[in-house]
Amino acid sequence: MVRIRIEISYLEGVEDPEASTLHHNLGVLGYDTVEDTRIMKIYELSFSEDTHTAMGMAKSIAENLLINPVINKYDIIVIGEEE
Amino acid sequence: MVRIRIEISYLEGVEDPEASTLHHNLGVLGYDTVEDTRIMKIYELSFSEDTHTAMGMAKSIAENLLINPVINKYDIIVIGEEE
Repeated sequence: MVRIRIEISYLEGVEDPEASTLHHNLGVLGYDTVEDTRIMKIYELSFSEDTHTAMGMAKSIAENLLINPVINKYDIIVIGEEE
Repeated sequence: MVRIRIEISYLEGVEDPEASTLHHNLGVLGYDTVEDTRIMKIYELSFSEDTHTAMGMAKSIAENLLINPVINKYDIIVIGEEE
């Protein structure tokens, strides 16, 4: 069993309207020392595969199903391995 | 400047319909060795504060604005500190 995280965020230079709105509203609510906000989505998947195969599947799932390559980037991180 | 991650996930025992649907559909699409799926949202905030104050602000932002305590839990992680 391998546990893998796919972290999806916006490409540099792409504006995330949800993050901008949060940043603005935190300022209005008095949290005015917040200098930057970013929002990411994490998909944590467990595979009954060896690590190498699971990494390949996670890459395929990310690229084919989860991200929009025009605006998103992703990182894949192995967070746990067990027999 | 302190960089803090607020990781929001579902409480144990609360069903996440988006994660269940993803799990089901991955199976249909041939990714049938995916045993479990979890989805989390990350808010990464930079504060122009000392770490202790920033942690307190992040906790307040998470509890008052970002989570629904009936279904969500959160973790706060300091991911960077600089002068």
